[in-house]
Amino acid sequence: MSTVTATTTATTPSGLSFVSDNMAGASPRIAGAVAEAAAGQVLPYGNDPFTERARGRLAEIFERDVDVFPVSTGSAANGLALAALTPPWGSVLAHQDSHIHHDECGAPEFFTGGAKLVRLPGLDSKIDPEALQAAVRRRAGDVHSVQPSVVSISQATESGSVHTVEEIRRLSSIAKDAGLRVHMDGARFANALVHLDASPAEMTWKAGVDVLSFGATKNGAMTADAIVSFDPALATELAFRAKRGGQLTSKMRFQTAQLDAYLTDDLWLDNARRANAMATRLGTGLKAIPGVGLLAAPQANILFCRLPQHVTDGLLAEGYAFYHDRWEPGIVRFVTAFSHQADDIDQLLDAVHRHSA
Amino acid sequence: MSTVTATTTATTPSGLSFVSDNMAGASPRIAGAVAEAAAGQVLPYGNDPFTERARGRLAEIFERDVDVFPVSTGSAANGLALAALTPPWGSVLAHQDSHIHHDECGAPEFFTGGAKLVRLPGLDSKIDPEALQAAVRRRAGDVHSVQPSVVSISQATESGSVHTVEEIRRLSSIAKDAGLRVHMDGARFANALVHLDASPAEMTWKAGVDVLSFGATKNGAMTADAIVSFDPALATELAFRAKRGGQLTSKMRFQTAQLDAYLTDDLWLDNARRANAMATRLGTGLKAIPGVGLLAAPQANILFCRLPQHVTDGLLAEGYAFYHDRWEPGIVRFVTAFSHQADDIDQLLDAVHRHSA
Amino acid sequence: MSTVTATTTATTPSGLSFVSDNMAGASPRIAGAVAEAAAGQVLPYGNDPFTERARGRLAEIFERDVDVFPVSTGSAANGLALAALTPPWGSVLAHQDSHIHHDECGAPEFFTGGAKLVRLPGLDSKIDPEALQAAVRRRAGDVHSVQPSVVSISQATESGSVHTVEEIRRLSSIAKDAGLRVHMDGARFANALVHLDASPAEMTWKAGVDVLSFGATKNGAMTADAIVSFDPALATELAFRAKRGGQLTSKMRFQTAQLDAYLTDDLWLDNARRANAMATRLGTGLKAIPGVGLLAAPQANILFCRLPQHVTDGLLAEGYAFYHDRWEPGIVRFVTAFSHQADDIDQLLDAVHRHSA
Amino acid sequence: MSTVTATTTATTPSGLSFVSDNMAGASPRIAGAVAEAAAGQVLPYGNDPFTERARGRLAEIFERDVDVFPVSTGSAANGLALAALTPPWGSVLAHQDSHIHHDECGAPEFFTGGAKLVRLPGLDSKIDPEALQAAVRRRAGDVHSVQPSVVSISQATESGSVHTVEEIRRLSSIAKDAGLRVHMDGARFANALVHLDASPAEMTWKAGVDVLSFGATKNGAMTADAIVSFDPALATELAFRAKRGGQLTSKMRFQTAQLDAYLTDDLWLDNARRANAMATRLGTGLKAIPGVGLLAAPQANILFCRLPQHVTDGLLAEGYAFYHDRWEPGIVRFVTAFSHQADDIDQLLDAVHRHSA
Repeated sequence: MSTVTATTTATTPSGLSFVSDNMAGASPRIAGAVAEAAAGQVLPYGNDPFTERARGRLAEIFERDVDVFPVSTGSAANGLALAALTPPWGSVLAHQDSHIHHDECGAPEFFTGGAKLVRLPGLDSKIDPEALQAAVRRRAGDVHSVQPSVVSISQATESGSVHTVEEIRRLSSIAKDAGLRVHMDGARFANALVHLDASPAEMTWKAGVDVLSFGATKNGAMTADAIVSFDPALATELAFRAKRGGQLTSKMRFQTAQLDAYLTDDLWLDNARRANAMATRLGTGLKAIPGVGLLAAPQANILFCRLPQHVTDGLLAEGYAFYHDRWEPGIVRFVTAFSHQADDIDQLLDAVHRHSA
Repeated sequence: MSTVTATTTATTPSGLSFVSDNMAGASPRIAGAVAEAAAGQVLPYGNDPFTERARGRLAEIFERDVDVFPVSTGSAANGLALAALTPPWGSVLAHQDSHIHHDECGAPEFFTGGAKLVRLPGLDSKIDPEALQAAVRRRAGDVHSVQPSVVSISQATESGSVHTVEEIRRLSSIAKDAGLRVHMDGARFANALVHLDASPAEMTWKAGVDVLSFGATKNGAMTADAIVSFDPALATELAFRAKRGGQLTSKMRFQTAQLDAYLTDDLWLDNARRANAMATRLGTGLKAIPGVGLLAAPQANILFCRLPQHVTDGLLAEGYAFYHDRWEPGIVRFVTAFSHQADDIDQLLDAVHRHSA
Repeated sequence: MSTVTATTTATTPSGLSFVSDNMAGASPRIAGAVAEAAAGQVLPYGNDPFTERARGRLAEIFERDVDVFPVSTGSAANGLALAALTPPWGSVLAHQDSHIHHDECGAPEFFTGGAKLVRLPGLDSKIDPEALQAAVRRRAGDVHSVQPSVVSISQATESGSVHTVEEIRRLSSIAKDAGLRVHMDGARFANALVHLDASPAEMTWKAGVDVLSFGATKNGAMTADAIVSFDPALATELAFRAKRGGQLTSKMRFQTAQLDAYLTDDLWLDNARRANAMATRLGTGLKAIPGVGLLAAPQANILFCRLPQHVTDGLLAEGYAFYHDRWEPGIVRFVTAFSHQADDIDQLLDAVHRHSA
Repeated sequence: MSTVTATTTATTPSGLSFVSDNMAGASPRIAGAVAEAAAGQVLPYGNDPFTERARGRLAEIFERDVDVFPVSTGSAANGLALAALTPPWGSVLAHQDSHIHHDECGAPEFFTGGAKLVRLPGLDSKIDPEALQAAVRRRAGDVHSVQPSVVSISQATESGSVHTVEEIRRLSSIAKDAGLRVHMDGARFANALVHLDASPAEMTWKAGVDVLSFGATKNGAMTADAIVSFDPALATELAFRAKRGGQLTSKMRFQTAQLDAYLTDDLWLDNARRANAMATRLGTGLKAIPGVGLLAAPQANILFCRLPQHVTDGLLAEGYAFYHDRWEPGIVRFVTAFSHQADDIDQLLDAVHRHSA
């Protein structure tokens, strides 16, 4: 597709794949909804019943009016959301592990017109509140420096941890007290939500979040994420930025039919629960294997552990696919998806067992 | 979806809708391909068999290696393609009727980092070669002026006309002689192609086109257009720009499965032929009705005509939907789609007849 | 200085030069003020007495508090001012002859993050009010289109005409009624002012201007123009944009000492009166010469006329320098400056006479 | 000048000021040259004898042809230079203490169209070569990540240290081996040069530097820095970027007359030697005072030391101005300038003595 080197290393995907939840396909009900949406003429650009329905479901789920902008990628969601929350001379405060720092090739800088991303430390990929406290007023009003403008919280985080509602509230409140806005990167929003057993409202606007990158793709949709804004004052700007950013689709129904099905009859929650349960099952199993060390108990659907090299080699030789060469030596990441079965996990555990013996 | 006023006026879409080909749904075979792609794990970001297959089909159709970047909108295709063809201090020469001038809310300016769009005149929405000749060297080398860098040709044009291969060659050659690059906005590429009965290669790279915005959405796909580049030197830049521009999807298979099905067994050509035939049928019928005047014989699937106000009013009252208030008074646009049936056209003609009587 | 072709054609500058007022040097009092400012330590970035004084003078002249941002070029002034007045998805409405359209290599697009410049027609390089009326609401609220956001008025214009205060008021009021902001490109502000015999306040904020590019360089300063903002709400944004745009000088005193001297004891008005008087003298003289036709009576310090080719050739052969090949054949532009003497004009007239004979 | 809080704290500038070398005025010879340049008409935009002469001097000093672009600030020099050396999806590797990271309000991000600045560690504000080695190939070719594109070296550094020629060569060679370009931020170029007693050529292009931000303002000029490019292939791009960035002055003579005088008869070297000698004198004196600790022996004209709080307070009370509240508690920065006299230093030392007693 391009001369740029692919970064994934797996080559034999299957039930053997634990590379990322983006390797899973789509939930049958979502695929069905898209197929069903294919018939008939409807108005373009979101003036259609599918979009109306998806918007209604999001309003219901968030227990309030929201502005919704479907996008084709999480990077577009994050970039556009941040662009509406910071001026070009602002800074975006985010954890040093965050996706916007590492994995979007500068999309936030592109969409914001060159705002600066500032890396904050913190355990478990969560921003340390004291570090945030020190950062939110850093050189505020000093014309020589970018101005702290927005905090971006990943929920769930890149290492698979989940902020409690109280933790989100605390970060938001530090931000708000200093006049900053709050963005949530919810690429794995549902995985975090079901882990907390919180309501979407509690985890977002009630906790101070202004704009949410609402991920659906990794949890069973095809190519449909959405920006969900809780601040009506941002709606016009987001609409123009989305259009100008190449994200206003004419046949929006094909995105919103996905979102509609995703949010219907708890499909999104069931998918997330499944993915999380698979990670928990894997974690529990791995913990029991001598020589294997979990970095943390998985909260969402990502699990980091320490594997002896020969175990890693053995798994790869069997066709298992997962990231293993991107962090410290010996550190391995497994990501589970809604599409994994308990059997897949048990077979993986069995393989680790065998190679560990 | 936003506080921004919708621009379409139709409210009762159906077989009665002639607003735009983006109101049609998707071809059943495309919907089927997407549903089928939903199962199983594959590598993300285009390292999957669906994408491999789509790329192969495009290479076959264009009779050469091409670089392919699926995108979610035509605006993204145009913006990214132009960004790879002009520096920020360059100018993009395009017809004054072109979509990039009027209907993308500045997406080309956004993606290019502020290049300037220059409007050129010409009959039938085609750039006048003499105007182009005068423009390509305008203030070349003058540091006070933006520098002519790329010509963008719409094929088919916004008014439904189609450049002959010879016309494309002529515009390209004027551009190339002055050191400019050539972009083709092919939102309705297939409609133009079948009208000319030319080969895709003849209509593009053999005629001097460097990068093509390959539209599929308006002709039966869901949300899958693609940038097709004929210049391997641009591949790396396009890959990074697409990622950074929020257009590199993780589950790319759901875009490329569409493109694959679209290009299989001539579906794309059949759809375009159908849409064009419907426009021709409509044009032929309208010409025979007293008081109705065609602005031009339709070449692709767009037809502009002059209707008496009471006819327009009558059609609208019956539930017909079409653009009628955006150009000179009395000018009406009908767009046909692959999904229209001969009966739809005949009923519309009948209605015009009745109201004209 | 670069490989880019210089655009000026004159090569023997002197009192023979009528190419542009930017060929003149600096007023002795300004040169003196700069030399005097060279001694002693003062705080950087504008926290110095020179800047304090210049700000005070501008406040006095404009009869109100103003925010002042010294810049090194008119392009920087225009670009930064426009960036504060339009979002990236906005459009800037300006006359088709304007400097921002033709002579800034896309600086407005660069500083605004890709806003679109829209060309409006009008006699004498002044925006036609009816054309403006039609443009200010063009597709307002339509997410597919850039949004009319600011009108930019050149005072004096590129052809040397001067808007009356009433004309500015009318354009501003059309803009304001539609929610747009008003920018004035005052590269030749003083020349316009003395022509009208208006007060700076009347010609700007009292007539609806929000932000002014206040030119001094062409009228006797060295490299000191300034953004003067009449809207306190824009001050913070302008400050950050200026810094980020590379325009916040550490030794600002060397710019503001120029502005201070420029505004002291009516130097700026005297200089402008001189330049204008020279153009008038030239115009009066030329009108009396058979075969020479003025395009308009000069209002500021720019004069366009029609010269027979042999006259142009004769002048060039004598070493006269002026633009003569950028418009229609036979059209010649003379620009007078504060540094021209009546003798310079009389000798030029004599030369035209001789060659016309 | 704006509602933005000034960041400097000194309020009584004089020979008492050690806040920054940008508080000094201008060398009399530079002031004289500017005054002298004020007379007569010359071609604008650098086509004048002053610019010709400055360019000649720079070519002579660097022992080769160079492309020169005068700019009004160091931020503009850095921003434009970096924009020519990295694509928007690139990263700029620089020391974590560097000016481009901290003190330009995102100017590099603005001029580059959103490239990412990456902070590297290293002693004495110099990039650690091993850290650079690890960074230059970080995720090269990975479309999800910005691409290492240019290394920016500050010479002298923000903490007053000076890279040896060998150190520059080593950093450049690591960069070049990985395909990166090399930028030098020479805001205090002359101070570094005289410390090393190297030739300008050795310290720049012979050591691998592609583009230099050549500072003159802090060392005796008024508002004249320059981009000096050693790569002819970048000249066109730099010319257009400078114009578009609002940095192409019409009356360029007033910048280049400064540069010409600056480089004549070793004025620049003499000024730098004076400033450095004053810092050395200050350092030697401070070292001898009990309770005062130098962080490092000053190499250029910046000195960091540890002062007891009551000493700092005492100095401030006497009217001394310097930065003291921006780093760890107790850390104080003194910057000397070409305009300081030995007496100024001795009086400062005497004051420290007194307050330390």
